[in-house]
Amino acid sequence: MTTDKTIRVVLVGGSGYAGCEAIRWLSRHPNVTLAGVFGPEGETGPMEAFYPLLSKQVPQAQELYDVEQVAELSPDVVLLCVPHKVAMGYVPDLRTAGLKVIDWSADYRIKNASVYGAWYCPHTDPRGLAEAVYGLPEYFAEDIAGADLIANPGCYPTCAVLPLAPLLRAGLIAPTGILVNAISGVSGAGRKASLKNHYPERNENFEPYATAGHRHQPEMEQALTMITGQEAELLFQPHLCPMDRGMLATIYATPANNASREELTRVLNDAYADAAFVRVRRDVTPATKYVAGTNFCDVSVTLNKGRVVIFSALDNLIKGASGQAIQNMNLMFGLDQTTGLY
Amino acid sequence: MTTDKTIRVVLVGGSGYAGCEAIRWLSRHPNVTLAGVFGPEGETGPMEAFYPLLSKQVPQAQELYDVEQVAELSPDVVLLCVPHKVAMGYVPDLRTAGLKVIDWSADYRIKNASVYGAWYCPHTDPRGLAEAVYGLPEYFAEDIAGADLIANPGCYPTCAVLPLAPLLRAGLIAPTGILVNAISGVSGAGRKASLKNHYPERNENFEPYATAGHRHQPEMEQALTMITGQEAELLFQPHLCPMDRGMLATIYATPANNASREELTRVLNDAYADAAFVRVRRDVTPATKYVAGTNFCDVSVTLNKGRVVIFSALDNLIKGASGQAIQNMNLMFGLDQTTGLY
Amino acid sequence: MTTDKTIRVVLVGGSGYAGCEAIRWLSRHPNVTLAGVFGPEGETGPMEAFYPLLSKQVPQAQELYDVEQVAELSPDVVLLCVPHKVAMGYVPDLRTAGLKVIDWSADYRIKNASVYGAWYCPHTDPRGLAEAVYGLPEYFAEDIAGADLIANPGCYPTCAVLPLAPLLRAGLIAPTGILVNAISGVSGAGRKASLKNHYPERNENFEPYATAGHRHQPEMEQALTMITGQEAELLFQPHLCPMDRGMLATIYATPANNASREELTRVLNDAYADAAFVRVRRDVTPATKYVAGTNFCDVSVTLNKGRVVIFSALDNLIKGASGQAIQNMNLMFGLDQTTGLY
Amino acid sequence: MTTDKTIRVVLVGGSGYAGCEAIRWLSRHPNVTLAGVFGPEGETGPMEAFYPLLSKQVPQAQELYDVEQVAELSPDVVLLCVPHKVAMGYVPDLRTAGLKVIDWSADYRIKNASVYGAWYCPHTDPRGLAEAVYGLPEYFAEDIAGADLIANPGCYPTCAVLPLAPLLRAGLIAPTGILVNAISGVSGAGRKASLKNHYPERNENFEPYATAGHRHQPEMEQALTMITGQEAELLFQPHLCPMDRGMLATIYATPANNASREELTRVLNDAYADAAFVRVRRDVTPATKYVAGTNFCDVSVTLNKGRVVIFSALDNLIKGASGQAIQNMNLMFGLDQTTGLY
Repeated sequence: MTTDKTIRVVLVGGSGYAGCEAIRWLSRHPNVTLAGVFGPEGETGPMEAFYPLLSKQVPQAQELYDVEQVAELSPDVVLLCVPHKVAMGYVPDLRTAGLKVIDWSADYRIKNASVYGAWYCPHTDPRGLAEAVYGLPEYFAEDIAGADLIANPGCYPTCAVLPLAPLLRAGLIAPTGILVNAISGVSGAGRKASLKNHYPERNENFEPYATAGHRHQPEMEQALTMITGQEAELLFQPHLCPMDRGMLATIYATPANNASREELTRVLNDAYADAAFVRVRRDVTPATKYVAGTNFCDVSVTLNKGRVVIFSALDNLIKGASGQAIQNMNLMFGLDQTTGLY
Repeated sequence: MTTDKTIRVVLVGGSGYAGCEAIRWLSRHPNVTLAGVFGPEGETGPMEAFYPLLSKQVPQAQELYDVEQVAELSPDVVLLCVPHKVAMGYVPDLRTAGLKVIDWSADYRIKNASVYGAWYCPHTDPRGLAEAVYGLPEYFAEDIAGADLIANPGCYPTCAVLPLAPLLRAGLIAPTGILVNAISGVSGAGRKASLKNHYPERNENFEPYATAGHRHQPEMEQALTMITGQEAELLFQPHLCPMDRGMLATIYATPANNASREELTRVLNDAYADAAFVRVRRDVTPATKYVAGTNFCDVSVTLNKGRVVIFSALDNLIKGASGQAIQNMNLMFGLDQTTGLY
Repeated sequence: MTTDKTIRVVLVGGSGYAGCEAIRWLSRHPNVTLAGVFGPEGETGPMEAFYPLLSKQVPQAQELYDVEQVAELSPDVVLLCVPHKVAMGYVPDLRTAGLKVIDWSADYRIKNASVYGAWYCPHTDPRGLAEAVYGLPEYFAEDIAGADLIANPGCYPTCAVLPLAPLLRAGLIAPTGILVNAISGVSGAGRKASLKNHYPERNENFEPYATAGHRHQPEMEQALTMITGQEAELLFQPHLCPMDRGMLATIYATPANNASREELTRVLNDAYADAAFVRVRRDVTPATKYVAGTNFCDVSVTLNKGRVVIFSALDNLIKGASGQAIQNMNLMFGLDQTTGLY
Repeated sequence: MTTDKTIRVVLVGGSGYAGCEAIRWLSRHPNVTLAGVFGPEGETGPMEAFYPLLSKQVPQAQELYDVEQVAELSPDVVLLCVPHKVAMGYVPDLRTAGLKVIDWSADYRIKNASVYGAWYCPHTDPRGLAEAVYGLPEYFAEDIAGADLIANPGCYPTCAVLPLAPLLRAGLIAPTGILVNAISGVSGAGRKASLKNHYPERNENFEPYATAGHRHQPEMEQALTMITGQEAELLFQPHLCPMDRGMLATIYATPANNASREELTRVLNDAYADAAFVRVRRDVTPATKYVAGTNFCDVSVTLNKGRVVIFSALDNLIKGASGQAIQNMNLMFGLDQTTGLY
């Protein structure tokens, strides 16, 4: 651990919720210098103008994104926190400029360009896609350490994959027919005002969405397949919950090999004994308030009427976005994963 | 429809949330005289002392429950809104006094006393159990009309059974392996203060509960079996959602007989074409705000990755309790089901 | 009381929160037929398309507003629930067509056109301004009964004026230097999506607004002056509170004539002894939940450190808008004020 | 600045909201070792048992409070986060044991024992009262640096005093007749479950409390008098707001010496030019979300209808409690005030 190392970071996309959260964590990180913040046209100016919360804490202004300006700052890494499609427009030039990138969009998460195309739009950066490492630190730490381009996982996939992967790997649940029923706080829907999330519409209103399929579903399946080496198939149904932050997945799977609750829990415990940010619960059921404001993912497993029932909770803006990106950054630069994240 | 009929109602248990809600509806009901309100020791006094909301609207005081005092008021029906176990202590005397009862507790819902015993406590009123009619008006209207003792269904069972029953009956979903994932607003947990539901603990906190099994599960299975004539088996997992009111079930089932979404929706539409309080949705996904403050249950169905996915929403204090009881009362006294409920 | 009377009502502006709330009350009102609903371009269609809540309850569609179409329906009264400036564009034609109007905007509330002009925009209907009656039923019931054009009061003015007027009239508080510190739920800000009221911005966020002055201030002063016959002067400061509905004013005034708390309370009690919708509290402090969903205004008064402190609460969408309009309508048509409002 | 200094801290009262918040900040503080956590009978055990949030972050258990056990740990300072009356039972022994104490209760805040007695209970530690320094760092930094016993200010007094003091000192507002109208999130009411703050009672419910006077009022007056050297007199009225955290005061004062808004703002700017945790706002009105999770107090001032109107916001659990205590601790041990607090 080289604690006197300083990482020069450029953040692109500071005006969204995850970007703002990242800036707060980065400004406390003992090994980080925030060299610059960039954003799209129409969203430039002092960070405190977007978030009065940041006054006196974050002196930076968000400047108009330009790859040359970014490169001039000689950052060690660029945190790219922009919408999908925009990201794959930026990445090729950033990589050509020799910069390492942690991309928070979906653009480099799905390895199969045609699957990506079916759920998002045609992919325009196959080279980046080939290069990108899926940044789930609990499973790909070594690859991440050597990566130049990281695809920071989605919030829902992180929440679902962390508890599922060890159980699948141990053969204690069937790899198909998995149901991921999940809820998210409203910050997960982004900062753009909409009637749907206008306060009087959303308050006291619990609502399913993406009922025809959500694009985090193929990401979950791919991640599980990558980790376990066998095809995984699942159905994912998200809901909006009237709260700012927090995500909770209730996952139903078919037990295999006569798994008992003790065995299921032991497998999770073993899998995450050394994981800094996964907490396996037994007597406490995961709940969003227990992870709020942290980079933890809390998981538990039980058996009920012949089904394996898994609960998993995280803060969608932290372990689901900014915190995981910083965890990846720590790995890339040889720091302890937890640096700046407790 | 005899609109000049007056029903004398006694409510037992006005100080809980569902009781208070009932009083508000009853005081607006064109055919109801609220003859008296009774409660347990330590909870007597003017209704407005419990709920300042009720001042100038509800003149009644809650008096100490006593079966003779209730009988002296010659009510046409007693709405019994007390905890399980207490209810089956009251019902035998009320019935002996010749009074009709709509019981809101779980005590008369589960026909099999040993199943009841396994989930609650030993049953002490087998005679009542034999007499009671399960008060789900959409399915048992005729029995309800002639009943002397009605078991008003639980909120979760109402929410789950209404969309499931027609699909099961039509053979479009498998009767086993059904998953009912549901959420409730906090009023569903009652009015007793607890750390768990202390505002700063519950706000911004979405949390699963009853992870070892919830006693509404056997009620759901029994109701579906009664309605469809075939054994139904399901797993029910509830969650607490940070809002006052509202309930939403997301239900997963295995399709049968090549059900298409159109067919599934048509079956629901047909089943509830004449139902006053079930709204089958197609372009709008059910959400708790769309049913808040009403006696409606909104349902929709879709297919996703080979599974039937059902959404069902209601107001736990109305269609899930007080409104359904009044709907049952209307049926018992030959009124239109909707009287006083729109 | 002619309870078999039927009032034909046309509502203009059903797609806003107050309009929707009005429709719900009107559809339950025993003496009302909702003859039509009209709205602006771009906001036409079935009411249930705006509010899925209204399905199966409200069959009406909102049609494009046109004075001739309105007149063809021969309504007894038009409830005009449109923004200020739009209202004074509609009223002259509606009045020319011989229709009675209850206007919910600010356009006819402020008698002095130059005061109106200073806070809003130049006034374009002086004739209407002269004709309009200020529709605060507790003070102007007789004028309202004979009016053809009613200016339905603002929510904040109703909340502040009801407790202040009797105390001023009795000479128990000084008419100047009054401070009205008030809060409103977010529905008071209307249904248009904005970053300010985007759920993740507004939740957990209590915030003052209109810090340079709010246009309800001159309305409050005028109403108090009209009622008491002496100039009243006050400072009004509103705040947004993270909740759907509810309004609470905390008002500070200088006592006069050695007012004691008993005397102050007695004056309020006397003033509102016969008022259907004002509840004078003594042992319960007004709170928004005690009036939610009702047409009540709860008021209380106390003395603290030589100042008179008044609390006043109402539901901004009901007593602050739709309920008060219906109360006015009841008066106009010789019904009991409470008809359809309990 | 001696950044390699380590302060051994004992916290008494970790199971309350402010104590839990303190533990989180202390565990991140670069110069702190949390030597032990103590609590009352019935509230001992691992901190994570009280707050599952703290798992894997805070290994400490709360042990039964005993002054000798505390002393054995040789702490440099004891943070005493227990209720009033309990605190003055503990402090004498802690001081006798030679330990420095930062007390969060009200017991040592009010210098005049008879004033304390009138609002709380008879004072039992006059020696401690004489020794205690009022820990408002923006005004008493020097005294705090040399103190052995610090009375950490109340949340409301901090919120009100910070903006008022400079304006009073500059003679720009009158020292009497000040009105402090304030709101607090529900965590301010503590962690003990009560019907009043049961989620379904508090949600959607804005409510005044302490309408006969609140004991933070004499603390505010004393603090202003201490700082300005002239008697200050004010009326304080608090309200509960349905949110977890945050406090906002809207303060009304009479201008003096023809203060303009520019002058008022300039005085605040000058007063807090070097203050790490006070942010003087001009174009942004303070709001609770802008300070949530931080140790900042945001203030602004305006003139409206001849009155000075001040807004002040802070996080009641941080600048109103734990953060301010750590700020005081930093001062006591020669660290930069901001250490561990950004």
